[in-house]
Amino acid sequence: MPSFADRLAEVVRTKGPLCVGLDPRWEALPQALRPPRGSPLDLAAVAAVYRNFCQKVLELVQPWAGVVKPQAAFFEHCGPPGMAALADILRTARDMGFITILDAKRGDIASTATAYAEAALGGWTMDGQTFPVWNADALTINPYLGRDAVEPFLTAAQKAQRGVFVLVRTSNPGAGLFQDLLCDGQPLYRHVAAEVVKWNAPTVGCYGLGDVGAVVGATHPRELAELRAVMPAVWLLVPGYGAQGGTARDVQAAYRSDGLGAIVNSSRGVTFPFHPDDPEWETKIITAAQRAHAELKP
Amino acid sequence: MPSFADRLAEVVRTKGPLCVGLDPRWEALPQALRPPRGSPLDLAAVAAVYRNFCQKVLELVQPWAGVVKPQAAFFEHCGPPGMAALADILRTARDMGFITILDAKRGDIASTATAYAEAALGGWTMDGQTFPVWNADALTINPYLGRDAVEPFLTAAQKAQRGVFVLVRTSNPGAGLFQDLLCDGQPLYRHVAAEVVKWNAPTVGCYGLGDVGAVVGATHPRELAELRAVMPAVWLLVPGYGAQGGTARDVQAAYRSDGLGAIVNSSRGVTFPFHPDDPEWETKIITAAQRAHAELKP
Repeated sequence: MPSFADRLAEVVRTKGPLCVGLDPRWEALPQALRPPRGSPLDLAAVAAVYRNFCQKVLELVQPWAGVVKPQAAFFEHCGPPGMAALADILRTARDMGFITILDAKRGDIASTATAYAEAALGGWTMDGQTFPVWNADALTINPYLGRDAVEPFLTAAQKAQRGVFVLVRTSNPGAGLFQDLLCDGQPLYRHVAAEVVKWNAPTVGCYGLGDVGAVVGATHPRELAELRAVMPAVWLLVPGYGAQGGTARDVQAAYRSDGLGAIVNSSRGVTFPFHPDDPEWETKIITAAQRAHAELKP
Repeated sequence: MPSFADRLAEVVRTKGPLCVGLDPRWEALPQALRPPRGSPLDLAAVAAVYRNFCQKVLELVQPWAGVVKPQAAFFEHCGPPGMAALADILRTARDMGFITILDAKRGDIASTATAYAEAALGGWTMDGQTFPVWNADALTINPYLGRDAVEPFLTAAQKAQRGVFVLVRTSNPGAGLFQDLLCDGQPLYRHVAAEVVKWNAPTVGCYGLGDVGAVVGATHPRELAELRAVMPAVWLLVPGYGAQGGTARDVQAAYRSDGLGAIVNSSRGVTFPFHPDDPEWETKIITAAQRAHAELKP
C-alpha cells in the first residue's frame, strides 16, 4: 500500500481538497430520517439515525470530495451504540474509496497513547487474530503532553501506512490563550510546528509531502500563510472554512504552488445546509458540496 | 447533591488520597480470568474480561481507596464492546460509593467540547428522556485549544455538580517539550496553572477547594511543590507515583497543610502487582492497595 501522504495526494489530485466533516447533531438532522415525533428513543435509535444520515452524506458528496472526517465526540455522545455507528461509517467510507480522518484529538503517554493509536489506525493483533477497531487512515492528535505523547502515534501510523494531524493553530476564537504565547521570541504554535516538521521529515513520500500533518485554522489567514511557508512538506488540515468564518480566499494560502499540501474541512456548511423539515435536504447537500468543491480549487 | 470538590474532600477524609487507575491490558491480566489459551477471541470477549477484572479490583481496593480512574484508551482499544464495559465499570464504581474520574484527556471546541462533556459528566436530555452515557464524577481535559475549548467542559461540570482536571504538568519524561517552554518569563505550565486558578475560583466549596482541578505529575517534585503553592484552592490529581518513579515522599508536596488538596493515582502498582499466572493475584492487589493507602497518608 502507498504511504498515507501519497494516497492523500492522489485523492486530492482527482477530487480536490474538500474534506467533509461528519458531525451529526440530533437537532440538525433531517426530520425525514428521524423516528416519528413522540416515539420512545434510546441511544441505539439515535445512533441508527446518525449512521443513516452519515451514510447518505457519503453517497451525496462522493463526486465532490475524496476525504471525510467523522468527529468522534458526536458518536461518543451516543455511548457504545454511537461508537458502533462510527465504526460502520468509517468502514463504509473506506469501502467507497474515501480517505478517512478520525477527528478525536487524542493525546496521552506511552502505552496509553499506543492503545489510542492502534485502535484508531492500524488495529492490533492478539493470538494471531487482528482487531481493526476504528481503522481510519489518519487521526488528529494533541501535542500538549510532549514528545513521548506523540511518538507512539507516529510509530503506529508508520507501521500501518497511516497518518496523523497534530494540532498546531486551531480555528476557535480562544485558541490564542496558550497557542499565541511568546516563548523564546516565537509563539507556542511555531514551536509545535517546528517539531511537526522534524517528525514529518523521515516520512516524506513521492509528492514531497509526509504522513505527519498539522491542523491550522482557516480563521487565521496570516498564520496559515506563515505556517505553509515554514512547513513546506507538511499536509495541512484546515478547519474553519464556511460556518466558522474562513473564506475560500483565506484558504488559498494553505496550498503549495503544485496545488497540493492542504485539505479544507467543511462540516455544517456541506452537511447541514437545510432546515430539518426541508424535503429537499439531499439536493441541498449535493449543491453545497458542489459549490465547496468549485470554490476550493487551488 | 454537594459539589464535586466537597464530595471529593469527604471521600479523601474517610479513605485517604489514593486513586486507583483502571488501565486493563490484556497481557497483564490474570490468566485465571481469561478464556482458556487457544479459544477464539473477539473484542466482546476481551471487553468481558476487562469488565470482570476491573469489577474485581473495585471490590478488592474498596477499603483502601475512595477514588478510581478508568483510562478510556484501553476501553476504546476494544471498540464498542470496550466502551460498553467502561460504562458498566463506571456505574458499578459509582454504586459502590467511589468517586469516578474518567481519564480521557479530551479537548475540542464549542459544541464538540459540549458533546464530550455531556457524555462524560452529566448526560443529556432529549424529548424529556435523559441519557447519562459515561456519567463520571470528573473528566481529565487538555487545555491546548484554549479558552473556548475549556469553557464547555466547565459549564457541563457545574450544571451537574461534577469536576474536571486540566492537564498542567504531566508525568511523562518528554512532558517538558512544550510545557517547560519559557513564555514571558514563565514556563508554559505556569500560564496554564494561572488560568486553572481563575476557572476554579468561582467553584470553591466548603473545604476551600474547587471543582476545576489540575493534573501535576509526581515525577516532578519541585514543580509539584511550586504548583501546590500557586494553586492553593485547586485539587491536584497526581499521576506518576509508583511504577512511573514518583515516591510517596515526592507526593507529600501535593498536600495542603489540612491534608486535603491532592489525590494520588496508582495504576500498575496497585492493579498489576502479580505475574498473570500467579494464583495469589487477588491477595497481592489487596496488599498493594493497603500499602499505598498507608504510604500516601498526608
